[in-house]
Amino acid sequence: MSDPKRESHVAAVSEVLDPEGVARYVAARSHLARVVGTVIEVETFGEGKINAVFGVRGDRGSLVLKQALPWIRVLPNWALTVHRVEREAWFLESWADFNAAHVPKSYGYDDGAHTLAMEELTGYELWRTALHEGRVSAAAATGAGTMVARSAFHTSPFGRDAEAHARDVARSANPAMDQMMQDVVFDIPFTVDARNSTDPQLTRWREKVRADEAVLTRVAELRWCYGTRREALLHGDLHTGSVMVAGDQVRVIDGEFARYGPVAWDLGELWAHLVLARRSLDVRRPGESAPDLVSATWAGFTDELRAHWPERRAASLTDGWLEAWLEETRTLAVRFAGLELLRRMIGVGACEQLTMLEPDAREAVADDVLALAVHALKEGQWT
Amino acid sequence: MSDPKRESHVAAVSEVLDPEGVARYVAARSHLARVVGTVIEVETFGEGKINAVFGVRGDRGSLVLKQALPWIRVLPNWALTVHRVEREAWFLESWADFNAAHVPKSYGYDDGAHTLAMEELTGYELWRTALHEGRVSAAAATGAGTMVARSAFHTSPFGRDAEAHARDVARSANPAMDQMMQDVVFDIPFTVDARNSTDPQLTRWREKVRADEAVLTRVAELRWCYGTRREALLHGDLHTGSVMVAGDQVRVIDGEFARYGPVAWDLGELWAHLVLARRSLDVRRPGESAPDLVSATWAGFTDELRAHWPERRAASLTDGWLEAWLEETRTLAVRFAGLELLRRMIGVGACEQLTMLEPDAREAVADDVLALAVHALKEGQWT
Repeated sequence: MSDPKRESHVAAVSEVLDPEGVARYVAARSHLARVVGTVIEVETFGEGKINAVFGVRGDRGSLVLKQALPWIRVLPNWALTVHRVEREAWFLESWADFNAAHVPKSYGYDDGAHTLAMEELTGYELWRTALHEGRVSAAAATGAGTMVARSAFHTSPFGRDAEAHARDVARSANPAMDQMMQDVVFDIPFTVDARNSTDPQLTRWREKVRADEAVLTRVAELRWCYGTRREALLHGDLHTGSVMVAGDQVRVIDGEFARYGPVAWDLGELWAHLVLARRSLDVRRPGESAPDLVSATWAGFTDELRAHWPERRAASLTDGWLEAWLEETRTLAVRFAGLELLRRMIGVGACEQLTMLEPDAREAVADDVLALAVHALKEGQWT
Repeated sequence: MSDPKRESHVAAVSEVLDPEGVARYVAARSHLARVVGTVIEVETFGEGKINAVFGVRGDRGSLVLKQALPWIRVLPNWALTVHRVEREAWFLESWADFNAAHVPKSYGYDDGAHTLAMEELTGYELWRTALHEGRVSAAAATGAGTMVARSAFHTSPFGRDAEAHARDVARSANPAMDQMMQDVVFDIPFTVDARNSTDPQLTRWREKVRADEAVLTRVAELRWCYGTRREALLHGDLHTGSVMVAGDQVRVIDGEFARYGPVAWDLGELWAHLVLARRSLDVRRPGESAPDLVSATWAGFTDELRAHWPERRAASLTDGWLEAWLEETRTLAVRFAGLELLRRMIGVGACEQLTMLEPDAREAVADDVLALAVHALKEGQWT
C-alpha cells in the first residue's frame, strides 16, 4: 500500500471490503439480508483475478458479492476503472431479458462501494475444471452457442430498431476495459513490451510469430474489427473460466468486459479455450474420444439464430444475407480463436492449460497449438 | 397547426423563430450581437429541408442561425428529434480540431431554443449549383477527399486511443437520425411503403430492382454495415447540397446526421452525387470534357490518410493492413454510391439532377444511371 498512485485510488472507494466487512455490508442492506438471512460464513473466491469476489452463506440462503477496486486484484500495480462492475451489472440485467437461464440473478449494483450482488450458482462448476477433468459434454457447448445467439439476435439490429440499437451501443460503452483488452490482445504480444514474459520458449514463439507479415496483417484487421464493430452486446471475455456448467446447463459470470462488439468475438474466444482443453486432454488421456465442442457450439448458435430469424425487425435483412453473415461470422470467429490461442501462448499471463502439463508434453502440445493458431488466424478455418 | 401530435411537439420548443424573432434573438445575445452588430436584415434560406435556416446580416458582420423544430421543415407531418442540431454542433466542434478550413466556425449551440449559430460562408456557393452550371473543379473534389481523410484519421482508432474512441462513439450517438436514415435508405425504397412515389416510371424501376435477389442481399449487407460499424465521426449526409465551394476551397454544412459510422459512407454518398451531376452535364452539354471527380476525391483521401499514417496510435496497425483497409473502403464506398443512386431514383424525394432534365433526356439518363447503380452496388466497382 505504499504506491502513491494506488493510495489516491483507494480514496475513490468508500470501503475496501474484507470478509468481516462483507458480513457487515450484507447485514446492513435489507434486500441482501433477505436473501441470506443471518450471515454464517464469508468465503474469498480465488477465481476472481480482476475483482475481489466473496461467497456469502447465511441461515436462509447464499449470494456472491463482487467488488471492483481501482486496480487488478492479482496485479495491484495495474490501475483499472472501478466502473467495470457497473458494466457487468448492465450486462447481467440486459442479458436477463432473453437469457435468464444463462446468467446468475442480479441483486443489484451499489455505485458507492462498486459492488454487485448476485445469485450463487449452487451445483455449478467452472467449465474449465469440468473439461480438465474429462467431463466433456456436447450439450454444454450447444447451450453456450444458444446463449451467444440470443444476444446476437436480441441486442443487435436483428431484433432491435436502429434507434434502440444506437442508444444501447452508447449506453453500454466500456472505454477503459476496451483499452485494456486491446492492449493485452492486439499490442503487447506483438510488440516489444516489458509486460511480456522472458521465458525463453515464449520468447522464441513470439519472435517466430512477429516475423510473419501475414499474421501481423490479420492481427491489425482483427484489432480494427474489435475496435469499430458494434453488432451486439457481448459477454466480452467468454473463456471456459467465465462459464459455469451443471450437466447441460450453462451460465456465464464475470461480465466486466461486456461491450457492444462483433458477435464472432465471443464465439472465437470460447472456441480457443475449448480447443486448448481438448489438446490438453488428448495428451493426458490419449485415445479417449470426445464430442467436437466447436461444432456443437456452432450448431447451437445457428439453430437458435435461425429460430429467431422470422421475428427480425427489418424486412430488408434478407435470407440470403443471413447466410452470408453466418459464413463471415464463422470465419471471423476462427480468426479470433487463432488470435486468442496465440495470446494465451505468447502474451501476458500464463496459459494454464499448457503450464499444468508436464514439461515434455508441454513442448509437444505447444508447437502443435502454435501451428494451429497461426493457421486459424490466417485462413479463417481450422484445417 | 391542427395536428395534435405536432401541437404537443411545439410545446417542447421555447420559441419557433421567424425572421423578426431571429432579429430579437440575436440582439439579446451579446456573443452573437458582437459578430453582426445591429441587425439589418434576416433572410430565410430555402436550402434547409429539415431545419429552419436564417441568414442574419448586421452593420458589422453576418451569421447563420439554424433552428431544429420537432418535425421536418418541408414535411411537417414527419416528426423528428430536436436534438439533431445539438449533434450538428458536436460535429462542427469535433471536426474543427483537424478540419478547421473545412467547416464553418461555430458560435455555439443553445439547448433551450435548439439553435446553432455559425459563420456565414461568404463567397461560397453550393457545390451542386456549381456543378450544375458546369463549374467542375478537380481541386474541390481533392479537397473533399482530404476533408474525409482527416476525420477518418483523427476520430478513428488510427489517431485515437481505444479508450478515447469508445468514449467518443458513445458521446456522439445520434439514434433518431440513424433510424430515419436507415428507414429512408435501406427500407422504404425496397419495401411496399405509402411514402414511395406513385410515378409510373419510378414504380417500374422499383419493381425491377426488387426482383433482383443479388441487389437485396447487398442492400442488407450495407444496412448491417451502416448500423453496426463505428469507424470514424462522419458528416453523415455528404451530398453536393451539403458541401459549399469557392474555387478549390471546400466546406461542409448541415451535419445533423453526424454519427460514427463506416468511412466509406461519406465517400460513397458524395460519389453518387458527383456521378449524377456528371451524367446530367453530359446530356445538357454533350462533348464538354471534365476531370474525373471520383478519382480526384479518392486521390485526395488516400494522399491525406497516408500522410498521417506515421502518426497512428497503434503500432500493431501495419502498412499491409492499411492497403487492405483502403481497398475494402473503396469497394464499400462504390457499393454505398450505387445504393445512394438507387435511392435518389426510386426512393422518397425527387432526384433533382434528373427531374431538372427534359422528359426525353430524363428517360435516357435514368435507364443509364439505374444500370450503373445496380452494377456499382453488386460489384463494388464502377465498370
